[in-house]
Amino acid sequence: MNTKKIAIMGFGTVGGGAYDILVENREYIKNTRGVDIEVARILDRSEEALSARNADAALFCPSADALAADPDIDLVIETMGGVEPARSFIIKMLKAGKSVVTANKELLAKHWSELEPIAEKNGAGLYFEASCVGGVPIIRALESSFQGDRINTVYGIINGTTNYILSKMSAEGCEYSAALKQAQALGYAEADPTADVEGYDAAYKLSVLGSLAFRTYVPYETVFREGISGITADDIRNARDLGYVIKLLAIGKRDGNKLEARVHPVFVPETHPLASVSDAFNAVYLNGDFVGDLMFYGAGAGAHPTGSAIVSDAITALTEAPKYRRFVADGKLEAGISLVGNFESGYYICVTVDDRVGVLSRISTVLSDNGVSIKAATQRSGREDGTATVVFLTHRANERSVMSALETIGKLASVRRIDSTVRVL
Amino acid sequence: MNTKKIAIMGFGTVGGGAYDILVENREYIKNTRGVDIEVARILDRSEEALSARNADAALFCPSADALAADPDIDLVIETMGGVEPARSFIIKMLKAGKSVVTANKELLAKHWSELEPIAEKNGAGLYFEASCVGGVPIIRALESSFQGDRINTVYGIINGTTNYILSKMSAEGCEYSAALKQAQALGYAEADPTADVEGYDAAYKLSVLGSLAFRTYVPYETVFREGISGITADDIRNARDLGYVIKLLAIGKRDGNKLEARVHPVFVPETHPLASVSDAFNAVYLNGDFVGDLMFYGAGAGAHPTGSAIVSDAITALTEAPKYRRFVADGKLEAGISLVGNFESGYYICVTVDDRVGVLSRISTVLSDNGVSIKAATQRSGREDGTATVVFLTHRANERSVMSALETIGKLASVRRIDSTVRVL
Repeated sequence: MNTKKIAIMGFGTVGGGAYDILVENREYIKNTRGVDIEVARILDRSEEALSARNADAALFCPSADALAADPDIDLVIETMGGVEPARSFIIKMLKAGKSVVTANKELLAKHWSELEPIAEKNGAGLYFEASCVGGVPIIRALESSFQGDRINTVYGIINGTTNYILSKMSAEGCEYSAALKQAQALGYAEADPTADVEGYDAAYKLSVLGSLAFRTYVPYETVFREGISGITADDIRNARDLGYVIKLLAIGKRDGNKLEARVHPVFVPETHPLASVSDAFNAVYLNGDFVGDLMFYGAGAGAHPTGSAIVSDAITALTEAPKYRRFVADGKLEAGISLVGNFESGYYICVTVDDRVGVLSRISTVLSDNGVSIKAATQRSGREDGTATVVFLTHRANERSVMSALETIGKLASVRRIDSTVRVL
Repeated sequence: MNTKKIAIMGFGTVGGGAYDILVENREYIKNTRGVDIEVARILDRSEEALSARNADAALFCPSADALAADPDIDLVIETMGGVEPARSFIIKMLKAGKSVVTANKELLAKHWSELEPIAEKNGAGLYFEASCVGGVPIIRALESSFQGDRINTVYGIINGTTNYILSKMSAEGCEYSAALKQAQALGYAEADPTADVEGYDAAYKLSVLGSLAFRTYVPYETVFREGISGITADDIRNARDLGYVIKLLAIGKRDGNKLEARVHPVFVPETHPLASVSDAFNAVYLNGDFVGDLMFYGAGAGAHPTGSAIVSDAITALTEAPKYRRFVADGKLEAGISLVGNFESGYYICVTVDDRVGVLSRISTVLSDNGVSIKAATQRSGREDGTATVVFLTHRANERSVMSALETIGKLASVRRIDSTVRVL
């Protein structure tokens, strides 16, 4: 059996995780998959990155050019993260005809349409199972399974940090800031948590997953995005009282040439399979026209789950011919496809009002005037400061109608403030 | 683009489901997957089968020999079910170099090791995503994803009929016989429900899934099997009181050269992701050494979900080179692999006893003498007939120790009968 030599660029947590698997299961992979994979070079800033993870210092390679020029290297794993220099390095490797396995969702969301044609032109493969939902093989499934189906909807809990924070708030009744601190202490959230909590990370992944599911490019910039930092302990409690849990969902829908792509907090009915996806776990829930509903569940991040996806991609790259995704096209929304901004949803609305007769009725009238129909309303009165909290759950309504109604409601004399608005699945 | 002509053998529910998709989504498949598939011949007993499903009578083909001899047919879908004549027909097609897509788990469980080498010898592909868990792409995942992982455990709710019956018993508090009647009325259970309720169907599928997961052949005959017909409404209630739901699970475990393969009812903790898989839905829960826990969920049966898996396999067969599973070998357990009969599990035991002082203590002593440690015990007394019900939950213990203890307990003077024994996950 030929030994295939590969390289790893970026030897941090995820790169180290892939390395562990390739070393520990090398014989197993050889026996079961018929390919012997040797990690021959590791690119990082310094040799210390290698010794920190018990890799032989002799594997150290300081230069992407040297790597690209090495004819012995069949494949390169990119686990550096971020756009540059990952982008330039990957392009060098592809141009040298080396297949690339990457875990880099940000790069993919921003430069996929640049990378895909370079890969195809040079006969190299581009693989990125590890970029979305860790070890869960959702990319592979979207490319190679239910191929005869039109996928109608994709619902994803695809960011572990926000799912951990929301699960913590739900389990302990704490506020967002306290849950965020716990997530940071455990390494689930970064010191600057913006990319996760404001939904950027989920939007990157939705761009990738949505494109594969709908077989049309979903540019990252078209994804509507709203984070979880505005969710309060009261919202979580109100959700539970109404039979829901709050999740940050990535939602993709395709109906003919109409496309929806959005990331925002959602009230998920507690009986829905997504409701029980807790802590740092991830899940993707799909509906296809013939296959019906499917869910894929697992660890969304972590050195070994993500490393597992990388290693599986590497084995595929070394044993199968590459395939290309021509629908990624020129990085724009396909001609004829229109993005639905004024989507439909149910809404949860929480308002603090003066505790006086007639307030509930005035708000209801505004909602009704905007074509928003109320499904349930409750009022909690009797506070010392003379205010009451009103909670509405609406039937499905247009986003713009609801926003317009809220603008009017916010100006009513008896309304102190609109506390929260969360969409309902 | 070349048009690929294919045939369907067996035009019942599942064959008709695949046909619907191939006709309705033909253009979509052509545009997105680059292959134009035409159903050119349909084999069944009579032309009526075709007209009943709006297929052109001109497609009717009465003879497998004629089909095998037709050089225009690239691929054959087998949706006849049962062992014969499906087995002989598939062998004819493979020998003629035609790839075969089958939904036939019984045939596969009983004759896989015969079919696989015939396929390989003739350069034809053998595909069977539809044989297990309907539209859920678990076969594809086990073959092409987490390839660098050793799979340690497979837990599957892989029989829709029994899951429907157990869900119904749980939701309505009814007995097994009433739930079975409802399942039969809805078409979820057959007039003779043996294959489903006694666990044969799940055992067929575990043989297939376990072989792929563990990369070693798990012969159907080695699967320990126990059905759900002994589960009572009391068991379901007792399970709920203890925080469990009862599911028929297919369990596969591999630890080095030790293998477990068993199908039986199980107490599943209500917080486990498998606990919320209800009605006719199916799920497979896996653990890999690096990828960790994964779950795949979806419709386990039905014309269109199963048809979806068939169509996806057909597209794969027509666009990729076939791969062969050499570990299926000679249809026997691989040399060196040993099957663990005396597996470990927790146990739920329900016993009817004379309502007298000291009975609980006597049973506890027998369990203890057999090395079975009690986790929880409750006694419900005060019946008019002078009996009481005692429920035990044990810590993990050897199957044989528990069975030996039960034999002794059954002979105790104060024990009227052992009502139920169910293993605990």
